[in-house]
Amino acid sequence: MFQINENYLKLPGSYLFSTIGKKVKEYANAHKDKEIIRLGIGDVTLPLAPVVIQALHSAVDEMGKAETFKGYAPELGYEFLRRAIVDHDYKKRGAAIEIDEVFISDGAKSDSGNIGDIFGLENKVAVCDPVYPVYIDSNAMSGRTGNYVEAAGKWDKVIYMPCTAETNFAPELPKETPDMIYLCFPNNPTGSTITKPELQKWVDYALKVGAVIIYDAAYEAYISEDDVPHTIYECKGAEACAIELRSFSKNAGFTGTRLGFTVVPKALTCNGVSLNSLWARRHGTKFNGAPYIIQKAGAAIYTEEGQKQTKEQVAYYMNNAKVIYNGLKAAGYSVSGGVNAPYIWLKTPDKMTSWEFFDFLLEKANVVGTPGSGFGPSGEGYFRLTAFGSYENTKKAMERIQSI
Amino acid sequence: MFQINENYLKLPGSYLFSTIGKKVKEYANAHKDKEIIRLGIGDVTLPLAPVVIQALHSAVDEMGKAETFKGYAPELGYEFLRRAIVDHDYKKRGAAIEIDEVFISDGAKSDSGNIGDIFGLENKVAVCDPVYPVYIDSNAMSGRTGNYVEAAGKWDKVIYMPCTAETNFAPELPKETPDMIYLCFPNNPTGSTITKPELQKWVDYALKVGAVIIYDAAYEAYISEDDVPHTIYECKGAEACAIELRSFSKNAGFTGTRLGFTVVPKALTCNGVSLNSLWARRHGTKFNGAPYIIQKAGAAIYTEEGQKQTKEQVAYYMNNAKVIYNGLKAAGYSVSGGVNAPYIWLKTPDKMTSWEFFDFLLEKANVVGTPGSGFGPSGEGYFRLTAFGSYENTKKAMERIQSI
Repeated sequence: MFQINENYLKLPGSYLFSTIGKKVKEYANAHKDKEIIRLGIGDVTLPLAPVVIQALHSAVDEMGKAETFKGYAPELGYEFLRRAIVDHDYKKRGAAIEIDEVFISDGAKSDSGNIGDIFGLENKVAVCDPVYPVYIDSNAMSGRTGNYVEAAGKWDKVIYMPCTAETNFAPELPKETPDMIYLCFPNNPTGSTITKPELQKWVDYALKVGAVIIYDAAYEAYISEDDVPHTIYECKGAEACAIELRSFSKNAGFTGTRLGFTVVPKALTCNGVSLNSLWARRHGTKFNGAPYIIQKAGAAIYTEEGQKQTKEQVAYYMNNAKVIYNGLKAAGYSVSGGVNAPYIWLKTPDKMTSWEFFDFLLEKANVVGTPGSGFGPSGEGYFRLTAFGSYENTKKAMERIQSI
Repeated sequence: MFQINENYLKLPGSYLFSTIGKKVKEYANAHKDKEIIRLGIGDVTLPLAPVVIQALHSAVDEMGKAETFKGYAPELGYEFLRRAIVDHDYKKRGAAIEIDEVFISDGAKSDSGNIGDIFGLENKVAVCDPVYPVYIDSNAMSGRTGNYVEAAGKWDKVIYMPCTAETNFAPELPKETPDMIYLCFPNNPTGSTITKPELQKWVDYALKVGAVIIYDAAYEAYISEDDVPHTIYECKGAEACAIELRSFSKNAGFTGTRLGFTVVPKALTCNGVSLNSLWARRHGTKFNGAPYIIQKAGAAIYTEEGQKQTKEQVAYYMNNAKVIYNGLKAAGYSVSGGVNAPYIWLKTPDKMTSWEFFDFLLEKANVVGTPGSGFGPSGEGYFRLTAFGSYENTKKAMERIQSI
């Protein structure tokens, strides 16, 4: 009799967004006169930039003619896109990444879920707390996290690195030595980030203890301050200890268009084995490339016009972030994030739990956000609002919160 | 110190298509006057059908307007596509598959590589020999195949089911009991298939021994004979023992457009756990949906016009298959496949090895095919030609082979 992967049975239910959806639906049904504003989920709302639309149309036309039709893509991705990435995202930042170190994919979620494939199951994993759930869940599925302890809301083999007001929302070097360290800066969900000297400390630490850093830079485009690194490869030695995940979802609105990439430097080795070659083998065996037309759309973002148009989108969302940040401050809340990220992280007032505040905000202001406890135990007592709504709704939401 | 997944180190080099590429390049450089015809790789050449192009343009326009822009897709895929699939591919065939049993993906290669995630590592795997390499390699990566024995060209924990002239290119029920059985009909690489009563025997066997069948039906559109099943769910009881993988690559030319789906029936359980829920969890954690515009393109294939246009493409390739089949027969070869599949499988003449025949064909006819031994030890002494070239080249290739 065949057996299933028993690790799946250890996963607690993934109820966060379904519970939110259910609660909002119930409230809406009971209060049909109320207009609800959703600032909960991290999905974009602006349409794709004109330069992207144009590239898509043009690539679609190519697919309709025998002379320009494209079949299977090169396994790593088309060179026109990998070269644009290397030139723009790395060379300009002083990072010596080469095009055969860049792997095009269908998005950072797939890559962050799949990257564990090339690592041993005995590796000890360290994550920030609160955290993007995919890092934990994908490791739980492969059996790397031990057992889930319901009372603590934690896995017993995972090293949790609290990121709270006490740590300035940044992780501290863990006491127990990890093998795989997941870092995400600018951070989802807290919206905070760290400076280049602070990130360098993590690189130095990883090199010292022989850990690999899985660095999620999906929100890189939202960085507004000078001393914040755009890529971990700005740090010395990172090419020997770090893998970087990047996404087109938030910098260009590709959440429903799907494109991302992962950088695995050739200098990153374990007992002489190059992780670049392992990921190439994984990529070539369990993946068959991102669509040609989507890769053309991705390349359009790197043109002069593409940079201008996508920067305008980011600026629009970041203006929303400012409205939320200032609005909450004016209403007396303790607020962080929102300066280098589209997420605003607030301390719930009057010692409310995250879920109590969710209900409070829904009832009193008809505004939907995300309870911090949904991202991990150290998220309890916090709450996330996103800047991805429209300006009009964002402004209205703040007026309502201020008048509670 | 972090460790890698050591199973990757057991994989033999994946040299088949790179060796072919190298040999062809060398020959072409040495004989610049020769016009080489490539009938080796299974990639399509006809452009996307007009109805698909139209759907793509229209969906791109939707993505460019705020009112119709689409962010994250539903995790299982858009209902418009899943409903079209259920109605057309299953209901019409008398298979009671429901829309929440269909999972849209970026292609059958990803799904066939990733499906192992939800199964235990101790499961015993059975594959046809010769075989599509992804089934084996993905299981090797997770540690399910034991060690690779170079001399035999086999993994020591895998059950190989020879498909040769002696077995009429169909597998026989294995002597050792497997837990996971990979079947692909119509078959890649042999181009052969089995009848519905023959497939029913496999379903009955799987139900009896408690095995799960991973059924790859990527070439379903090429079936021309009446008694050949288009889906395994035409067989009684299959919903309790089989997962089906489907692709848009070969029926609609989506090799570079990327779309596929997997059916995991809710009736398929292991000790009371539904595999549908496990795959839903995997899909929701390590994947984030196929692009909206590509899902719209997929749905267009199911319209009346879409069916007509894609059937014309399949007919074009199947005419090539006939040209190859008849051409080889006329030249005195032992040939199979090509009737319900775009692949023609021939016995090498004069006891040549697959690679010897590769060199022979390249030199004498300037035609490129794929050595059967590249697909497994029982592929030795066989050779694959594909019907995906142009009619003109296919015809010319046969004239050359006949005049050797």
